[in-house]
Amino acid sequence: MSLKASKLAMVPFVSVDNMMRLVHHVGIETFLADLAREIEADFARWDLFDKTPRLGSHSDVGVIELMPTSDGELYGFKYVNGHPKNMKEGLQTVTAFGVLSDVDSGYPVLFSEMTILTALRTGAMSAVATKHLAAPDAKTMAMIGNGAQSEFQCLAIKAVCGIETIRLYDIDNAATEKCMKNLAGLGFQITPCSTPEEAIEGADVITVATADKDMQTILTDNMVGAGVHINAIGGDCPGKTELHRDIVARSSIFVEYPPQTRVEGEIQQMADDHPVTELWQVITSAQAGRQSAGEVTLFDGVGFAIEDFSALRYVHQKIKETPFYIDLDLIADPDDPRDLFGMIKRAR
Amino acid sequence: MSLKASKLAMVPFVSVDNMMRLVHHVGIETFLADLAREIEADFARWDLFDKTPRLGSHSDVGVIELMPTSDGELYGFKYVNGHPKNMKEGLQTVTAFGVLSDVDSGYPVLFSEMTILTALRTGAMSAVATKHLAAPDAKTMAMIGNGAQSEFQCLAIKAVCGIETIRLYDIDNAATEKCMKNLAGLGFQITPCSTPEEAIEGADVITVATADKDMQTILTDNMVGAGVHINAIGGDCPGKTELHRDIVARSSIFVEYPPQTRVEGEIQQMADDHPVTELWQVITSAQAGRQSAGEVTLFDGVGFAIEDFSALRYVHQKIKETPFYIDLDLIADPDDPRDLFGMIKRAR
Repeated sequence: MSLKASKLAMVPFVSVDNMMRLVHHVGIETFLADLAREIEADFARWDLFDKTPRLGSHSDVGVIELMPTSDGELYGFKYVNGHPKNMKEGLQTVTAFGVLSDVDSGYPVLFSEMTILTALRTGAMSAVATKHLAAPDAKTMAMIGNGAQSEFQCLAIKAVCGIETIRLYDIDNAATEKCMKNLAGLGFQITPCSTPEEAIEGADVITVATADKDMQTILTDNMVGAGVHINAIGGDCPGKTELHRDIVARSSIFVEYPPQTRVEGEIQQMADDHPVTELWQVITSAQAGRQSAGEVTLFDGVGFAIEDFSALRYVHQKIKETPFYIDLDLIADPDDPRDLFGMIKRAR
Repeated sequence: MSLKASKLAMVPFVSVDNMMRLVHHVGIETFLADLAREIEADFARWDLFDKTPRLGSHSDVGVIELMPTSDGELYGFKYVNGHPKNMKEGLQTVTAFGVLSDVDSGYPVLFSEMTILTALRTGAMSAVATKHLAAPDAKTMAMIGNGAQSEFQCLAIKAVCGIETIRLYDIDNAATEKCMKNLAGLGFQITPCSTPEEAIEGADVITVATADKDMQTILTDNMVGAGVHINAIGGDCPGKTELHRDIVARSSIFVEYPPQTRVEGEIQQMADDHPVTELWQVITSAQAGRQSAGEVTLFDGVGFAIEDFSALRYVHQKIKETPFYIDLDLIADPDDPRDLFGMIKRAR
């Protein structure tokens, strides 16, 4: 008997290398805008999804999480770790991969790297929030925290909201220089700033993406003026926040999935019943977004499984008719499904 | 810049083909006996593990589950589906794959097919239960249900407990013929039987592994004599059982992880506080196993994450210094961990 696996046994795998090729093939701004549209479309059919807070396994130095969801036709999950100390050891703080499966058969249809894809979808998610919540004439964004996520935030918000004026700040000047260099030539007007106060001067949107696993106060209350929209992205696990409680208290707060955000987001500083609006309800117009020019809106983003599902489905569609994947022999496929043992025996 | 991924970015992948090669390289009976030892060793340090019932996503036709666990040094999870209707469509009822990761960094260290590995560890698990619960002089086993799992059960119990006399029964005679053919030449004395009653005549151990997603009564009470040990393997999801309630009621019941077994196992027919013994406590001698020659012992096996963890760790050890894996470029590994975007940009 041939050891060659049949077609059913094969699962397309998108490596890191192929994901980068796919991103360049599509164009990174187009990719980000497409992801934002996919996420918006899935948030608009929120009720269809099987939702559960992510399942985390915590250690002293980090967390490993599984984030599953399903729309009844496709099932997706992401594996993602969060290890802030990794950076000092030359490793990624966050790495991820994911799987998309056919609900009817339970067979996987895509296995993909998601370190890059998570960075892209996290940018796209902030862009969706900014589109629905920022002042309509927003022109300037302060980007606080210029690490691995910063360029994706800037580029996605530019692609979706047309914001091209960026004010950068990071406690580490080298991070700001890296971010400036990476964004050079991509159509931005960029100002590096030496304090957070300077960065948010005149900004209509403030995006905060820092990585320490602590209660941090990157922004204090007196720094935040009327009418701004804040994307708080970096606080994404229990015990980690970025904003002073007083800012959170006077903001209109928008979240992905409340049972998860109350444990992981900025609102873990607030009472359990502190009022929040689910972003999907703003997208479907079931709830109001920004209601006045002076209002401070806050997207308390922690990342939710549906965003990964949207991203996996998009990649699954996009790789068709491209060479940017290889087939993995992942599923045992005996001629007779009851004869798994015989398949092994004959393979000798 | 080279697109070549660095060593850190690489995760060993064991395909179906390579898993079969590994099994033959080790020898299937040795592999099963080794797995039984690994499972026993992990059950003996039960308290160290992070335990949670599996996370299932149910549809009308099946279930997709994630089964994570961690011992604090390694983290493992398995993806597994259960779709009884698949068999009629020429697909596997159960397919699976899994990942082992380093808790300290969150980086995956192994990605493996687990359809074959699950079949092997499920056999090994029954062998562990049979070793600790069956009568010491057990010589004959009835194997009820001769589908995909049957040969693994027979071979593992032979490897661990020395039981070589097998009586086979299945409602489908073709399944029994397949099982006989597969076990031929492997040192068994095999009798095919035309009724379940005939199969369990004189059997010291009864192993039941059937696949329908219904409340079935494969065995009725008057069929089961004093002193036997029963492995009930096939009832592994809500609404699916194999034994008549009266058999369960008069058996001493042993389980893997009660919060999961009460929902999925034979004991879902019983009251929520029906007494059960956790098998790990029998292994550590904290609780008694079989206490008299006439006692009916029942291992209500549903499969638990620690068994998969043991199997993944075993494969991770065994593939070293073999050619039975390929390296996958799964983890993005920029020179500067904060410069994920720069890595993508330079890859153009």
